[in-house]
Amino acid sequence: VTLEDLGERALIERVRRRVAAAGGAPPVIGIGDDAALVAPVSPRGMLVTVDAALEGIHFRQDFSTPREVGWKAAAGALSDIAAMGGVARHLFLTLGAPPRTRVETIDALLDGLLDLAGRHGVSLAGGDTIASPERILLALTAVGEPAGERAITRAGARPGDALLVTGTLGASLAGLTLLREAPALAIPKFAAALARHRTPEPRLAEGALLATAFHPTAMIDVSDGLATDVGHLAAESAVGFRVDLASLPIDDGARAVAAALGRDPIEFALASGEEYELLFTAPRDEADAIREALARAACAPATIIGEATAERAVRARAPSGRERELHPTGFEHFRG
Amino acid sequence: VTLEDLGERALIERVRRRVAAAGGAPPVIGIGDDAALVAPVSPRGMLVTVDAALEGIHFRQDFSTPREVGWKAAAGALSDIAAMGGVARHLFLTLGAPPRTRVETIDALLDGLLDLAGRHGVSLAGGDTIASPERILLALTAVGEPAGERAITRAGARPGDALLVTGTLGASLAGLTLLREAPALAIPKFAAALARHRTPEPRLAEGALLATAFHPTAMIDVSDGLATDVGHLAAESAVGFRVDLASLPIDDGARAVAAALGRDPIEFALASGEEYELLFTAPRDEADAIREALARAACAPATIIGEATAERAVRARAPSGRERELHPTGFEHFRG
Repeated sequence: VTLEDLGERALIERVRRRVAAAGGAPPVIGIGDDAALVAPVSPRGMLVTVDAALEGIHFRQDFSTPREVGWKAAAGALSDIAAMGGVARHLFLTLGAPPRTRVETIDALLDGLLDLAGRHGVSLAGGDTIASPERILLALTAVGEPAGERAITRAGARPGDALLVTGTLGASLAGLTLLREAPALAIPKFAAALARHRTPEPRLAEGALLATAFHPTAMIDVSDGLATDVGHLAAESAVGFRVDLASLPIDDGARAVAAALGRDPIEFALASGEEYELLFTAPRDEADAIREALARAACAPATIIGEATAERAVRARAPSGRERELHPTGFEHFRG
Repeated sequence: VTLEDLGERALIERVRRRVAAAGGAPPVIGIGDDAALVAPVSPRGMLVTVDAALEGIHFRQDFSTPREVGWKAAAGALSDIAAMGGVARHLFLTLGAPPRTRVETIDALLDGLLDLAGRHGVSLAGGDTIASPERILLALTAVGEPAGERAITRAGARPGDALLVTGTLGASLAGLTLLREAPALAIPKFAAALARHRTPEPRLAEGALLATAFHPTAMIDVSDGLATDVGHLAAESAVGFRVDLASLPIDDGARAVAAALGRDPIEFALASGEEYELLFTAPRDEADAIREALARAACAPATIIGEATAERAVRARAPSGRERELHPTGFEHFRG
């Protein structure tokens, strides 16, 4: 059965049933009306972000299953809420697909999206379906609210602040590189890197803990690659950074792929987008307490990888002690 | 200069400058961070809706200018807020375009969108830009809040309620039909119908007045065509309707096109989507007061076109008095 056979109204009914069976607190008024009504939760306002994934640009069906595509699209939008120190509440989906798409593909896209959303208490509160002749499209809107007293923006880092990152870096690009250049190597040994590329985790618990218990001065999620995203923090905060390459928490999966393909794992760590780790600054004297609190809460660990500087350049310090300027890598998904 | 030449970062800067110069109250945190922070306005919660327009499906560049395309995309999203009896506050845009798109085209799309938004006090609060190899895409999210005590849904019409519609019907499809079938006829005589197809008006003032001063029982915007949208009200309210065809406020522009093409203007009025008029039910004894209040407020007029019935069928009564069942017309934009 294809979308064409099913028709738009039956498709919406199908989505509605799947959503009713999924997790996450529903909105006051949900799918089936002209707009959703979302309950007011925080007097501090509502966080809203939009993030889209288009077939062939942001995902490929020969690299990821439909379920993984749905999961990852949701992860990208939810990660933006995490990066503001927010609690995510609802997702809205504009779903485009060619008329000949099988209904099972749509079901699987939704299952992946609803699976990740449900794990974070997030419901699908509304959407729109359109015919998209060439490519599957998932355009997501995520709404939530600040977990703490205020939202954490990209602006606010001060010279002397510690620069930290959650989790590990490099595996998403390592997995993608493996799929592109050596698909025959996609064996169990590299499963961790492949999983990281296909089903990344938004760091919502980590962002909320930081925003409620500490004083992060600026935050962003690593979606364009560490080198590029440090540049965003620098530009918006009007500071520079020194990044200590020896301290980067390079993912074991990224190291394994780098070794197999003869690459430098540090380059994976600097250029890998869609990591969805949180990159943030905090007062130097809070950095250790943050690391301990994340560990106690069974969150992803945080690593100090550098510091903010008054001089506005972004520099990388090599293990040898030599410094070089760190330029944005221009992460362009499949266009690179 | 094309998008490819400009690059994503410069494009976002360009959008940011245009938005700063446009109308509408800005959000607390706007374009340039991971998510926007929208101020809490109403304790009744926030309305959120998504609506997308894809080139070749929802618009054609040989039928509409980029400015008109941007206007109409915004109108579709804002109309969903109007249909809930809401006040619109912010728009979010996911903009996709082929890399060879000229920057002037993007500027014009944005100008049209920002023009309509500004007229309603709505700001562009955030967005996402993606490469879309074949087609321009505008995926919009609109947020706002109920103007009155509660949001008006599609459910709530009761047998005996009057069925009303704002403005006039038929001109959007008449204009589109003219462009498709007889472009040589696109002369000044038909300018009104063409304008209605290209730059429709969301009925925000009308929806807010209804929600604050009266007791509409159910409401929807005419986006799929009157016949189809009456069916949505019937299904969600679990009632039927009798629509009096002699009372339909058929647009003069629709009549002019119908006469020129040898069509029945009533068919235009029943099947025309993207009208963005409000179709609503209200207690019979409020109907005249509603019509007077809209006239006094210099809003679009409202016309009583039928009534809700206990019997769940949707019927049309012809001027002859004969009744027939009214079926959804399956408005499919350019796919029909």
